[in-house]
Amino acid sequence: MSTTTFAEVTAVTPEAPGRFTATVSPAWTIGGKPNGGYLLALLGRAATADATHPDPLAASAHYLASPDPGPVTIEVEPLRDGRAIGHVRARLRQGDRTCVEALFTTGRLGDTPAPSWEGNQPDPGTSDLTAGIRVPAMTPSGIPVAIMDEVDIRLDPDSTRFATDGPTGRGELRGWLTLPDQEHFDPQSLLYAVDAFPPATFDIAPTGWVPTLELTVHVRARPAPGPVRVLHRAHLIDDGWVDESCHVRDVTGRLVAHGTQLAGIRLP
Amino acid sequence: MSTTTFAEVTAVTPEAPGRFTATVSPAWTIGGKPNGGYLLALLGRAATADATHPDPLAASAHYLASPDPGPVTIEVEPLRDGRAIGHVRARLRQGDRTCVEALFTTGRLGDTPAPSWEGNQPDPGTSDLTAGIRVPAMTPSGIPVAIMDEVDIRLDPDSTRFATDGPTGRGELRGWLTLPDQEHFDPQSLLYAVDAFPPATFDIAPTGWVPTLELTVHVRARPAPGPVRVLHRAHLIDDGWVDESCHVRDVTGRLVAHGTQLAGIRLP
Repeated sequence: MSTTTFAEVTAVTPEAPGRFTATVSPAWTIGGKPNGGYLLALLGRAATADATHPDPLAASAHYLASPDPGPVTIEVEPLRDGRAIGHVRARLRQGDRTCVEALFTTGRLGDTPAPSWEGNQPDPGTSDLTAGIRVPAMTPSGIPVAIMDEVDIRLDPDSTRFATDGPTGRGELRGWLTLPDQEHFDPQSLLYAVDAFPPATFDIAPTGWVPTLELTVHVRARPAPGPVRVLHRAHLIDDGWVDESCHVRDVTGRLVAHGTQLAGIRLP
Repeated sequence: MSTTTFAEVTAVTPEAPGRFTATVSPAWTIGGKPNGGYLLALLGRAATADATHPDPLAASAHYLASPDPGPVTIEVEPLRDGRAIGHVRARLRQGDRTCVEALFTTGRLGDTPAPSWEGNQPDPGTSDLTAGIRVPAMTPSGIPVAIMDEVDIRLDPDSTRFATDGPTGRGELRGWLTLPDQEHFDPQSLLYAVDAFPPATFDIAPTGWVPTLELTVHVRARPAPGPVRVLHRAHLIDDGWVDESCHVRDVTGRLVAHGTQLAGIRLP
């Protein structure tokens, strides 16, 4: 049972203009290291705290060093404050070390009932959450994944073959993500959702964790209450790097966030 | 005939530690505004100037304001300098105005002869450059596009229907990109290549230009000499924003760069 809500573990406290404190939860970690999307959500809370532009529309994070669970400082610097959109730089520091720096374009998501146009998208699928198989708090290679005791990730049965029969070679994981206590997603928690799933490369080759180097997120609509459907795919492994994309749809099927990341990988 | 090479229009001159000057070329503009990928390449030259980590592996730019053609300053701040990779913040300023801020993860691209794995990619196509139709220096709606007098973009005949019969609704443009004087692409000019094509949304609806808000590029391999094949696609138009992706392959068919961007769009 979950002991921490997402709102709790991403709370930021203003200390001075442009300066916040926060605590990285030991529960939201993989092998003791905080999830990269979780850290980006922390930065997103701080970057949108002033309420002029309450939503992160685009966020780009570069990961310099992994913070340990515990106290961190978040520094926020407005770069430009326009009428419709703003631009904000945010960085997460622990002691004298910068761990993550991110750029945000902020604004206010509209209330359009549906997109104007959609195309060139992967098949979103029609899987049933209740048929999904929960990702356990341990990887096939034995890394403890504490965060899976917090969030509830249900993979489509067809996406769990990497853990039972071995990788399928498709580099694709599909399923559903639910926050602790079924907390509703908001634009900030979508920054986490695009990085929540296990590496899609687990469906290509068994490896250790795949550390994120760079993560970019576009938040496209305010999600309807409920879990989100996630499609997480790998695209190219070359020279020790892999890029992955993540499509997140709300329960109505609307695409609410898209992420793309570059990560390091050591193939066996 | 071209008057400027890409090397010339992206030259940066060190003025002081972490400070460069450069000149934004009036020839590399669309409706008088510099191309966003061109500006990112300028930042990329400065961000990789110190030669410890000569290649941009990942770059994320947020566009605050469009500079006018003319002199600009580029400020570079190393955020972390590791053994294999570095992290650098770079910003382009004109007068007292920040126009673009970008984060770079830098390193050295390997000499792997081929990727380890590739999947979940759109069909790269087999179009012939010599059959392509050159993009003229004027949009269908009458915006002058000076940059098309510099670079040579040849769209597959099937991708030019937006300009003749009207948009197909597919939101996809395919073709080839050649730099002036057939200059070889390098990792820095690939930062431009992912933003070189006309908006893929021209194949959905005739609009004005589609200004880039955020552009992220992953450079995946050193390109072979020759032109590059480009697949530029739109994915979702919602609430006045569109995301586009761009796959760039060298003449051998290898995926050398991938871009994703969020841009503003006003549908008619």
